[in-house]
Parts: sequence; structure tokens; C-alpha cells
Amino acid sequence: MSTKDFLVRAARKEPVDRVPVWIMRQAGRYMKEYMAIRKNYEFMTLCRTPELAAEISMQPIDVIGMDAGIIFSDILVPVEAMGIKVTFEKDHGPKLHNPITNYDDVVALKIPEPDVDMPFVAESIKLFREKLDDKLPVLGFSGAPWTLAAYMIEGGGSRNYTKIKSLMFNDKKTFDLLMEKTTETVVKHLYAQIKAGTSMVQIFDTWAGCLAYDDYVKYAFPYEKEVITRLKKLTDVPVTLYINGCGNILEKMVETQADVLSIDWMVDLKDAKNRVGKKVALQGNMDPCCLYGSPESVKQKTLETLNKFGKETGYIFNLGHGILPDIPVENVKVMVDTVKNF
Amino acid sequence: MSTKDFLVRAARKEPVDRVPVWIMRQAGRYMKEYMAIRKNYEFMTLCRTPELAAEISMQPIDVIGMDAGIIFSDILVPVEAMGIKVTFEKDHGPKLHNPITNYDDVVALKIPEPDVDMPFVAESIKLFREKLDDKLPVLGFSGAPWTLAAYMIEGGGSRNYTKIKSLMFNDKKTFDLLMEKTTETVVKHLYAQIKAGTSMVQIFDTWAGCLAYDDYVKYAFPYEKEVITRLKKLTDVPVTLYINGCGNILEKMVETQADVLSIDWMVDLKDAKNRVGKKVALQGNMDPCCLYGSPESVKQKTLETLNKFGKETGYIFNLGHGILPDIPVENVKVMVDTVKNF
Repeated sequence: MSTKDFLVRAARKEPVDRVPVWIMRQAGRYMKEYMAIRKNYEFMTLCRTPELAAEISMQPIDVIGMDAGIIFSDILVPVEAMGIKVTFEKDHGPKLHNPITNYDDVVALKIPEPDVDMPFVAESIKLFREKLDDKLPVLGFSGAPWTLAAYMIEGGGSRNYTKIKSLMFNDKKTFDLLMEKTTETVVKHLYAQIKAGTSMVQIFDTWAGCLAYDDYVKYAFPYEKEVITRLKKLTDVPVTLYINGCGNILEKMVETQADVLSIDWMVDLKDAKNRVGKKVALQGNMDPCCLYGSPESVKQKTLETLNKFGKETGYIFNLGHGILPDIPVENVKVMVDTVKNF
Repeated sequence: MSTKDFLVRAARKEPVDRVPVWIMRQAGRYMKEYMAIRKNYEFMTLCRTPELAAEISMQPIDVIGMDAGIIFSDILVPVEAMGIKVTFEKDHGPKLHNPITNYDDVVALKIPEPDVDMPFVAESIKLFREKLDDKLPVLGFSGAPWTLAAYMIEGGGSRNYTKIKSLMFNDKKTFDLLMEKTTETVVKHLYAQIKAGTSMVQIFDTWAGCLAYDDYVKYAFPYEKEVITRLKKLTDVPVTLYINGCGNILEKMVETQADVLSIDWMVDLKDAKNRVGKKVALQGNMDPCCLYGSPESVKQKTLETLNKFGKETGYIFNLGHGILPDIPVENVKVMVDTVKNF
């Protein structure tokens, strides 16, 4: 069995030779090779330039040796294509310069055609696939409709998500149209990546874990499910759904028909497996902060995580959230090697 | 049955005439009466001045009519008494000016004697009780050992809690001594409040929800349990434990022997009741952001929350987190009145 098959086979709960491993944000700031490129370009320029995006995507594969590549991009790429200016300020994360404030703002949003409005995404994937020489699978990704809508209304990172929640509770007409447009955009964006040759895609509804259970069911879940349902009619590549703070909604997430649930580190993996592991594959979920420990403690935490799931298929090793900027690369290598030797 | 009894009786799962209601951070920035005082004083000065603290504590009782008063203070009051300078910067939350960086810093920390080092806390409670004329119960509170330790190491608010987690994973000696000292401080601080006449106390391990399950069990839970165990030997006032992000650890929290678990809004209250409601009382858990809706939607969300628990005892209505600064007071009144009429 080629290593290339591990990821997709695990996602489909088919037999695999070993647990596959990759890391959310594996191409990024914790690597000196990335920082060397980053210092010369704006963040969004990296996302928009296929040669650079493909080169950055290769870095963790070359240096650390993950089992899958994820295309270097950002969940706000389609948001920008919808007509909202995005920049990344040092130490302050993304800034959306013309956030949504009313119904007319939503009416004015464009539903981007990926080939025309974000052609660099597919081009980056094709270039990355060439560099990988078909030895490893490539993952595509998108923000989920609710999380993208939240960014578009909050205007950037948020502590309490007060603006999106106020809109949800007060202005159904605006919220509904915004969700319709983000949903359409996400489907097109993901399908364009699949057509460019990704073996899997992951949907990040990263912020949906801040919703009360009933509000998740009403305001985020239906759009996750619609995206996945529509993709399943177009393609058979497996779809992963990630939510940070998923412990209260795991069973509901299964109903989206996602093939894989990518779970945060606060959930106990063994518990998650007992709750939903018969129905879906699981991905995760070591606390990224474990990588601040000694190499020995990293190895131990990695083994503890692996042992919680056990040696069945239907499991993809990952962190419970994106890797953090100041984590030592040698610890990441210890983690990845520990998974490969399990 | 006097209204004064509702809260403690509900906490003990004894019969009550109706569901009691109070709100975390009920005295604070969303009230114009508070802002009128706040503009003349530093935040910590308000905490340290019994006349002001008692006056502020009364404001929500007078204007909105909660069933309990909570003394106006801050979870960082004992941290300051331990020797760390705390200030509150506008829009940036607390700033700890000499955070813990090594073992010697922890050795230098004082274990404060409440009567000597924080006498204003007990004095505020006594003054507040006089103002209440024994008609309503007074709640005392403290940060839990882990959350206080996290503040002391992070130096303020934190996104990923990388410093406290690094310490936990790398420097057991320093972490253990810090937890020993914060635990001792919390016990003394809470017992001093109880001796001053509080009817209940609440322990805020607000940030402990950021821990992986195993890490919660190892690094936060034992100190919560120790505080509660030691208090139970000294007094029979009920103890409430609050953690933001408690959905994955509810059953474990029961083992602390807390009388009441105060749960965040992401957990479904009905589900929480099914999981632990036979063993402990529950408090919570409406999303504070619901209060941004229309008065009608506030009433509806309040009723939905009430109906999830039903009309048994063992339930205290509250929000799932502290009330936010820009929430309309009239909506808070709608919520409180809806509970009272349930």
C-alpha cells in the first residue's frame, strides 16, 4: 500500500498499514524556511502566488515528513473574492476593512467564480501536486459558511462574537442572505480545489463552537450539511469537518455526513470514539501546547493520544487546533516520527 | 418561604417556591449607575473601598431585582495580595505587572492573611449585608487555584495559555509550589468571606476549560477538590464551581463535591441535567449574547432555558458567562422578570 493511500483510506475507514499524520497549519510561522519567504511578502500575496504557495506547502513535507500536504492558503481567500478587503496586521491577525453592517452590504457581495476570481488556488494545487510527484495526497480546505460570515461581520478576530450573534438574533433577512451567499461560495471554492486534484477537503467551522447547542443546530449546522451534501453529489473525495469546541455537538456533527470529524484537544479522543467512532472517522486531537514540552514529553503525549484511539482504522493523527508560531520544529518531528512508528 | 432562602435551598436541592436568579458580573459596566461611579475611580480602588463596593453591589438589586447579591470584587484581588501588581487598562482587561517567570518568583509570593492583607473584602460584605437588610443572600467568590496561577504566569488575558501550559509540562517543581500557594490563598480568601456572612460562595476556574481532559484531571481538578474539601470541613455554606468550557468534564467536576455546577452556554442544559443533575444542582446557562436580541426574543430564550431544566429544584438561573458591557438593562430586566414569573 502506498503512503499516498493512507489518508483517504483512513478517512473511509478502510484498512491501513499505519495511522496517517498531518498538522493543521503545518506550513507556517513555526518553520524558519517559511519565515525566510514571509519576510519579503504580504501574507495574502503568498496565498495569491502559486509558485510561492506551492513552495511553502512543500516545506513541512521536506523538513518534517508529514503524510499529506495541505495547500498553503487562508480561509479568508474566498471572503476577499466576495468583495471584502483583507489584510494581516503583525500580531493582530486578519483585518477585514469593509465588514458587513447591513442588508445592502450583503446584497453587494459577489459570489466568486473560482476560475476567474481565485484562479491561483487551483494553480497552487496543481504546482504543489507536481512538486509532490504524486507521492502524497493534497488536501484542500475552506472556511465554513458560518465562520466566514462571522469574520465578515466581526471584521476580524473576536472574543465574544457579539456582532454575528446580534445579527442572528435580530435580523433574519440579512443573516439568511449572507449564509446563502457564503454557502454557495464555499461549495464552488471546494469543488474547484477538488477539480484541481485534491484527494480530500476540510471545512473549518472553527468558531461555531462558541454557539449554544440550539443555535449551532439552527445557525451553523444546516449550512455545513448543505455544503457537504452538495459536494457529495459532485465528487467522492472525503470531506472533513473541524470545529473548535466540538465536545457538545459531536453527535450532531455526524449528521452533516462528513466522512471525518476533526476534533479539538479539549475532547477526550477515547470518549469521542465511543460516541461517534462507529459512524465517522476521527482526526486530532493533541493540544498544540504539548509541543512546548521536552521531546520526551512530546513523545509520551503523542503515544497517549494514539493509544486513546487504538490501532483500528478510521483515525488520522493531527493536533486539536492549528500549530502555534513559536513551537520548536524538532518537537514536531518527534511527534510525526512517533506516529509513523506506532 | 422567604426569597432569601431560595438560592441556598435550590443549591441544596431542597424544595423551593420558584427558580432563583442572579447574574455573573451583575454589578458592572452594563449599568449606567456603575459607570457613574467608575469614571471617578480606578477599578481596583472600587474593590478596595468597602463603601463603594457595597454601593455597586446594591445597584442591580435596586434597579433589576435579582434574588441574590454578589459582592463587587475581582478574582485578582487575592493575586494582588500575594504580591503581584494588578491594574486594569481600558479595553485591555487586567495587566499583571510582575508575572511569575521562575521558581524564585513563586517562593517570593506571600500567602495573604485576609484580615490583614485584604480586610476590605470582609468589610464590603458586612456593609452590603446591612444595605440588604437581611432580605437577600450574599454570594462570595474567588478564582480557582489553576485560573489564578494562569493569570499570574500569563500576565493577563491569554489566547492560547501557552505560558502556563509550558510551565505545567516542563517545570513540575515551580508549578507544584505555585498551586500549593494559590490553593492555600483561595481557601483562606473564601473562608474569610463566609465568616463575614456570605450565604454561598462560587469558585471560578474560568479558564480551566482550555485544558485537555487528562490535563484538567491532573492540573486543575485536584486543587478545585482540595479547596472544596477543606471548606466543607470548616462550614456548611454551599459551594458552586464555574468553568467556561465545561462540556467535556462535567462528570469529573461532580467529584469535586461542589454543591452546584455553574455551566457555560455551549452545553445543552437538558443534556447536563441528564448527565449530572441527580448528583449536583446546576446553575446557568443562557448565552450572554442572547441579551442583544429584542425583548421578545430575550423572553423566549429565557423560557427555553427554564424549560430545559423544568420545574424541579436544584436549579439556579444565570447566564453561561459574565454579562457583557454593552447589553441593554431593559433586556436584563425582561430576563429576570421572566424567571420570577416562571
